[in-house]
Amino acid sequence: MEIKNSKPKVVIIGAGFGGLWAARTLAHQPVDVVVVDRNNYHTFLALLYQVAAAELDAEDIAYPVRSVFWNKPNIDFILAHARRVDLQNNRIETDGETIHYDYLILANGSVTSTFGVPGVEEHAYFLKTLEEAVALKNHIICCFEAASRETGNDNKKALLTFVIVGGGATGVEYSGALAELIHGPLIRDYPTIDFADVRIELLEAADHLVGHMPKTLRDYTARQLRKMGVDVRLKTAVAEVTKDKAILKDQEAIPTRTVIWTAGVRGEELPADSAIRVGRDGRVSVQDTLQVQDHPNIYVIGDLAAIQDDSRVLPMVAQVAIQSGVTAAKNILLQVAGKSAAAFRYADRGSMIAIGRKAAGVAIGKRTFKGFIAWIMWLIIHLFNLIGFRNRVMVLTNWAWDYLLYERAVRYVFPSRMPSGSKACACAPASHEDDKQCAD
Amino acid sequence: MEIKNSKPKVVIIGAGFGGLWAARTLAHQPVDVVVVDRNNYHTFLALLYQVAAAELDAEDIAYPVRSVFWNKPNIDFILAHARRVDLQNNRIETDGETIHYDYLILANGSVTSTFGVPGVEEHAYFLKTLEEAVALKNHIICCFEAASRETGNDNKKALLTFVIVGGGATGVEYSGALAELIHGPLIRDYPTIDFADVRIELLEAADHLVGHMPKTLRDYTARQLRKMGVDVRLKTAVAEVTKDKAILKDQEAIPTRTVIWTAGVRGEELPADSAIRVGRDGRVSVQDTLQVQDHPNIYVIGDLAAIQDDSRVLPMVAQVAIQSGVTAAKNILLQVAGKSAAAFRYADRGSMIAIGRKAAGVAIGKRTFKGFIAWIMWLIIHLFNLIGFRNRVMVLTNWAWDYLLYERAVRYVFPSRMPSGSKACACAPASHEDDKQCAD
Repeated sequence: MEIKNSKPKVVIIGAGFGGLWAARTLAHQPVDVVVVDRNNYHTFLALLYQVAAAELDAEDIAYPVRSVFWNKPNIDFILAHARRVDLQNNRIETDGETIHYDYLILANGSVTSTFGVPGVEEHAYFLKTLEEAVALKNHIICCFEAASRETGNDNKKALLTFVIVGGGATGVEYSGALAELIHGPLIRDYPTIDFADVRIELLEAADHLVGHMPKTLRDYTARQLRKMGVDVRLKTAVAEVTKDKAILKDQEAIPTRTVIWTAGVRGEELPADSAIRVGRDGRVSVQDTLQVQDHPNIYVIGDLAAIQDDSRVLPMVAQVAIQSGVTAAKNILLQVAGKSAAAFRYADRGSMIAIGRKAAGVAIGKRTFKGFIAWIMWLIIHLFNLIGFRNRVMVLTNWAWDYLLYERAVRYVFPSRMPSGSKACACAPASHEDDKQCAD
Repeated sequence: MEIKNSKPKVVIIGAGFGGLWAARTLAHQPVDVVVVDRNNYHTFLALLYQVAAAELDAEDIAYPVRSVFWNKPNIDFILAHARRVDLQNNRIETDGETIHYDYLILANGSVTSTFGVPGVEEHAYFLKTLEEAVALKNHIICCFEAASRETGNDNKKALLTFVIVGGGATGVEYSGALAELIHGPLIRDYPTIDFADVRIELLEAADHLVGHMPKTLRDYTARQLRKMGVDVRLKTAVAEVTKDKAILKDQEAIPTRTVIWTAGVRGEELPADSAIRVGRDGRVSVQDTLQVQDHPNIYVIGDLAAIQDDSRVLPMVAQVAIQSGVTAAKNILLQVAGKSAAAFRYADRGSMIAIGRKAAGVAIGKRTFKGFIAWIMWLIIHLFNLIGFRNRVMVLTNWAWDYLLYERAVRYVFPSRMPSGSKACACAPASHEDDKQCAD
């Protein structure tokens, strides 16, 4: 009889909220855990828009994955990009080594979906990764630098027109943060620019913003954004993006150098053979235990999982990722102990949105809050959910600066030269050659 | 008779200490000032090595240039790379517009000098710009990530060998900071690595470190570094750097993936016709008024200027830049008022070096301080000289973390993909193709 020396090996792909909470749940348990991610840091995505609005440093919302696992000797980390799941042999192929698993948790998360709209991939800015947020921030500053030297009136107006596509949480929060960046510190930075030329356009195909919120908060959100100078245009869809304009479905063309695409997300391409069924939105349908049909040792959690809850599929939010991560980990421990996996029960903690300084909306159960009190709730909850005490201190300091002194400290272009092929519109000389967006 | 409407125009190339102090001196004076820099931020170079040692965020030591000029309406900023000075027509050619000047202050600063040692340009890391500091930090972390998966013993040792060339201030301070990074947080991050394999080699061609300091501090510095595990090798010069080793003058080859070149600096290539004479070290010999011979409307300050002071040429340090910047600006105001320029008098404020936690050396006049008291002096002076109150708070918070908790919060690889052509050895999959240093 074969003697099994080693504990069962659990591989977790992705160090987002889902992956990290799954790993934490498995700490000090009778399993060996390996977390695989292409970055060596966890990103707190809820505040990504503030990095893109020069409100926070990239470092403030990132946390080194290995620190999470200090004093958790059964958890290891591999910095690698998972390429494919080899279901036959229970192996993950990466760009580096191949990793064997006994149990697998797929927590890859989601990516931007362009819905195939022409030009979006090539010309629009995205807001899903730390790199994208920094590239967008750099581009915004560059547009103002270029506008401050531009003599042609049409060019100047196009440089100062910012089109945000998608009225969900990301689009709304970024519109508000961008308006505050521009009408606060940037006005002081660029005394030669006429700020009446600045336009922030928020385009939404539906007839309301933030569809996941109650009607009272949807209306409040649109009202607040308009007060802040954002041109909120409902029932407005984009047909095409080119390097110098956004073309709407009704043929109207908006001259602009900056289209920010927040209109859609989809599950991140699953590194598996076709044996795992993926829906049109890139998400994997899972059983109520979060297991994949016919593969009881494979779990899918977070944004990548299409989890049925009563009549709806759970949304792609942090709370679903955290709770499903914990459940998947607990289910694996049940299986290891020879028991069967239990069903996932989602506890809805409500949703919230920040529109700007002292303006937010919060929905918990049937109750809604708005304005200053909601904003304070938003601040506290987001601070609390940041990983790492140091990050909390840094974010709090930056916020105090922004909100008390109306100043943004981090509005500089760095690195001056972004990775080639990126959409970063660096103004620094080194990249003028491949500057595709600012210059004409 | 022609009526002169406009005030004399002063153009300052460079927003380092020299350029900024010159501009500040000209604020609210009867001149129009334009500051030109290729970055839209000022970098506090004295703390650059801490960014490369994951101790500070890049953002902590950078400050947006435009903020310096808030409420100084006679100062404008242009984000551009100065290419050439057209002495005939009093114009600066940049990668963007051409800028006319009546008076010119050249404050371009200095760049790394390789002294033509083969392979340094291609394979060694530099520590003169924010981008280089971040690239170096990323590379160090990547070496540990690679070593944690490496099975070959020789490869692992080469990945864990760090060679610093040059025992001046930068080389010494970085050696100390790197030792603390490795023997503090990285030991906790990589439980599978045997830290007995780690080697930090500091190579210096002379028979002492920090030649600008008194002998007692030179000896103290070498002693402290050795205590921290740095292998200090004096009278040791590098003959060649290849992608996997540093070859010494005596033919010894040190297998390593990381050579950090801090052995030399030279004036940044002067964007002028040959009419301005430049020395072998790239610096411009100036008159005692800081004016260029035969060009009384052109001043050179800071690292770019070779300023004779009694028997010596002043060193490339922040105090010289600041004081010469103020003098050049005052001299221009004298010229504008129809008076003649005054001679520059340098007031030596002493020098200091930080070796590590609670270990520094300070020399003021004939007095020297070392150990804890010197370290506190170093901390206070550097905090005081940072521009921007927010930066001071951030740096102080990071230091408190580092020194009290022995933790480095910012040790992650970002951006995961550095500009192509850079030496960044990103571990993230996207850049594996052009990864020239870590992988073999």
